[in-house]
Amino acid sequence: MSDRSIVREPHEVLVAGRRARVGGTVRIVGAGLLGSSIGHALRKNGVDVALTDTSPAQLRLAVDYGAGRPAAEDDAPAIVVVCTPPDVVADAVAAELTRFPEAVVTDVASVKLEPLRELRDRGLNLANYIGSHPMAGRERGGAISARADIFTGRPWVICRDGETPAAALALIEDLALDLGAVPIEMTPEEHDRSVALVSHVPQVVASLLAARFADAPELSLSLAGQGVRDTTRIAASAPELWVQILAANAAPVVEQLDALAADLGAVADALRSPDAPGARRRTADAIRQGNIGVERLPGKHGQRRTFENFVVMVDDAAGQLGRLFGDLGELSVNVEDFRLEHSPGAQLGLAEVSVDPATLQSAVDGLTARGWRIASTSD
Amino acid sequence: MSDRSIVREPHEVLVAGRRARVGGTVRIVGAGLLGSSIGHALRKNGVDVALTDTSPAQLRLAVDYGAGRPAAEDDAPAIVVVCTPPDVVADAVAAELTRFPEAVVTDVASVKLEPLRELRDRGLNLANYIGSHPMAGRERGGAISARADIFTGRPWVICRDGETPAAALALIEDLALDLGAVPIEMTPEEHDRSVALVSHVPQVVASLLAARFADAPELSLSLAGQGVRDTTRIAASAPELWVQILAANAAPVVEQLDALAADLGAVADALRSPDAPGARRRTADAIRQGNIGVERLPGKHGQRRTFENFVVMVDDAAGQLGRLFGDLGELSVNVEDFRLEHSPGAQLGLAEVSVDPATLQSAVDGLTARGWRIASTSD
Repeated sequence: MSDRSIVREPHEVLVAGRRARVGGTVRIVGAGLLGSSIGHALRKNGVDVALTDTSPAQLRLAVDYGAGRPAAEDDAPAIVVVCTPPDVVADAVAAELTRFPEAVVTDVASVKLEPLRELRDRGLNLANYIGSHPMAGRERGGAISARADIFTGRPWVICRDGETPAAALALIEDLALDLGAVPIEMTPEEHDRSVALVSHVPQVVASLLAARFADAPELSLSLAGQGVRDTTRIAASAPELWVQILAANAAPVVEQLDALAADLGAVADALRSPDAPGARRRTADAIRQGNIGVERLPGKHGQRRTFENFVVMVDDAAGQLGRLFGDLGELSVNVEDFRLEHSPGAQLGLAEVSVDPATLQSAVDGLTARGWRIASTSD
Repeated sequence: MSDRSIVREPHEVLVAGRRARVGGTVRIVGAGLLGSSIGHALRKNGVDVALTDTSPAQLRLAVDYGAGRPAAEDDAPAIVVVCTPPDVVADAVAAELTRFPEAVVTDVASVKLEPLRELRDRGLNLANYIGSHPMAGRERGGAISARADIFTGRPWVICRDGETPAAALALIEDLALDLGAVPIEMTPEEHDRSVALVSHVPQVVASLLAARFADAPELSLSLAGQGVRDTTRIAASAPELWVQILAANAAPVVEQLDALAADLGAVADALRSPDAPGARRRTADAIRQGNIGVERLPGKHGQRRTFENFVVMVDDAAGQLGRLFGDLGELSVNVEDFRLEHSPGAQLGLAEVSVDPATLQSAVDGLTARGWRIASTSD
């Protein structure tokens, strides 16, 4: 690998010098996007990966792409990772616990309580079951889209309660760390409430907001700016997948949707009666609480460092953005963040570049000297 | 200007060869961000700009920065642009119409009906008043942040109804075009409903969604990904400004908030009773309508071109992003769009680069040869 290789191997990312710990055979049930990606990542660490899938074609693809070998009758896996569609997770976990009583079985479903309840209802011994949720950020694509790196730096939730055996927990933590993920332990209840808060309810909200554009006049939509495009970006998600997720996590989602609907109603009431005592203050408080909340979201490095921005105007004609990148590179501008905003109806892009405040002026001066038009700088 | 200057002069952006038409004196009332920016842009076109402001300090700053000259007693402006805070717009417009009966008076307030109603209530002749709303995207900063280019490529709404005199309308259209903006004509009612739809209601929604993070456990927030960060980005907006805007546009905002709250309730009900007939379909329809709506939002160039993406992994250690930019520039990769996503808790950034499908492979090959790790490509 050339010395320009920037990103370390997955298992080195988080803990310098840490060596992969998971060994022996890992059996993966379901060779789609997540299962195949786990296979790829484990194989890079020299682990023996045994794949199985109800679709012979999917299995063949996954094996051909190098995610692992077909599972064999005499396999004795230490870990089983169930990566089936959500509606059959409980069945698959139950089958694997029964078939491999020595193995620790985990899964990757995006809700944790429902599969756990189903398993408890069957009266199984669940000492060897630990629910996982790797939040890899991509849910579609199948074996062809699988990559070893999709877990790197991502949260990997491991569900435990007061009775989870320590050895089994350690094994799944090692799995997550070996894949370059960030293990985060919580109870299944905490997990489901958390994903409702930061993923499921935002999805519903973005979708319903965007749904109002479906029949809106084109003239109205022509006034849309980057703000609403960002707010509704995730409304492009797949309906079938989300119906399953929302149904499986209904309780916390419903609770939070009810609360949000009430908040919307409170703001509407305050605006309906602007002269009522406290009406203006209620609206201001809503915005203010939003300021606080958005500040609490983890950003870069999980820290909140202060950057300064400047905005460069980029003619979207071919090559201009590349030229900007070239100049930023040549000027050695330490770009901390970069956001590109397009202007509907014109060839103009606005590139918001975030840098260390101490370097703002030299970056702006350097780009200006090269002919770039700076639209604005933060104060 | 060096030949690296990429962006054409404002008045050339949209109509090649079009020469600026507004001449004579333009009087600007209120020399804050918008007023000063209009001044700067007009001065680049050689227009005589006369500034006034209730704050002598703001006026002095604006004049010093080159936005125009102080207004004089014997000025005879053809156009007056009122750029005061929203609560005094009607007063200012009334005063200017009275003082300069030959001039066309426009304003830049972000809601159009309320000032118009106040003016009608005073029984004035409004033949020379045309409401404007330049959607410049930045609302804070004062004269120091003013730039000539902030209107380039942006929508500039011009309010007209069946009785608007054609000559006055043409003058304000010329003003918008001279500033490089995209004039969009609609009635004040259409305007207020439109900005409620694409700006005001999304603001309330993003703020209320983010408000739920204000008291949430940090562990829950640690699961947040780029999706919810984008959805709540605009929740960082200023409360005081938004209380004014929402109060001034209360009617359409309330109507749309009520409808949205009802939609949230309908999804919550469907999830509460998942076995009720049509419940699953109702949830799927909500997501599907969101797909349709978000597709209708204008994007780059107002067209929907098909790009392919690939994702490059960037170690956030200093300089890596700049190196990526440098390599993209050196490889002459025609970058159509660029989005940077950070991984909370780790030093990893994921840069999603959009290119013409025909160039995807060579871009990926070129970067890989330079040691970059490609996390994924779109299918």
